[in-house]
Amino acid sequence: MKKQLENYLHEHIPLSKAMGIEVIEAVPEKVILGAPLADNINHKKTVFGGSLHAVATLACWSLLYINLKKMDSAQYQIVIADSQVSYQIPISSDFQVECKMPDQETWQRFAKILLAKGKARIKLSASISHHGQLAVDYHATFAAIQI
Amino acid sequence: MKKQLENYLHEHIPLSKAMGIEVIEAVPEKVILGAPLADNINHKKTVFGGSLHAVATLACWSLLYINLKKMDSAQYQIVIADSQVSYQIPISSDFQVECKMPDQETWQRFAKILLAKGKARIKLSASISHHGQLAVDYHATFAAIQI
Repeated sequence: MKKQLENYLHEHIPLSKAMGIEVIEAVPEKVILGAPLADNINHKKTVFGGSLHAVATLACWSLLYINLKKMDSAQYQIVIADSQVSYQIPISSDFQVECKMPDQETWQRFAKILLAKGKARIKLSASISHHGQLAVDYHATFAAIQI
Repeated sequence: MKKQLENYLHEHIPLSKAMGIEVIEAVPEKVILGAPLADNINHKKTVFGGSLHAVATLACWSLLYINLKKMDSAQYQIVIADSQVSYQIPISSDFQVECKMPDQETWQRFAKILLAKGKARIKLSASISHHGQLAVDYHATFAAIQI
């Protein structure tokens, strides 16, 4: 799944290749994406805030993509509706973004609405740590729509 | 200022070059950045949400950069603290992001604190329209710190 997801991202979202995104882990429970400082550096020699947000968005998108594929055979389009990011510490190295599945109750409520109505929304979170501290706290709402 | 800002972004934030960002307007009242669909496309053939957020971030950063340069001769570092984005319509073409100065009272309060304390925060907004409708509504808090 890791290589397949990485190829999909690089092929369909060229900016993911420009950002040097690598899929570190891609299982239904969590997705971890990595990216190098060099491709995402800013004028302060830290990671550009736009890159941090973009990699977090792709981590959450990927987690939802994997879980929707696992759920049933229907095809879904995933759309981001909103996002909120708090940048707490600048990152001066390569970095990894982790997006974990929300609690089971949240997922089951989402899946139930999606199967009944063909569309539903879910809130996902991702985080980036730096030197053992939370550096970026990301939250976003995604909509899945049956196509 | 336009070409100077564009060169600065491309040189110091390589992702801005990968996104094909062009400075359309760069005056103290507003900054407009443009970017092509091709470099920022996603799997749905619309603009990747991460690109929309990243270009909006750079538009706001640039507006603050221009106004701080104009304000006084001190050097300031500009850091993004948080951002909130609402994605209202998918964009299926090249796009432009506009960031305007906040009202004068907000700016003057910010400038007064910055000059007195050497650091201050300000909220800026940017927007992206598509076919005459608001497509992306972006808000972020930036901190300026005297260096």
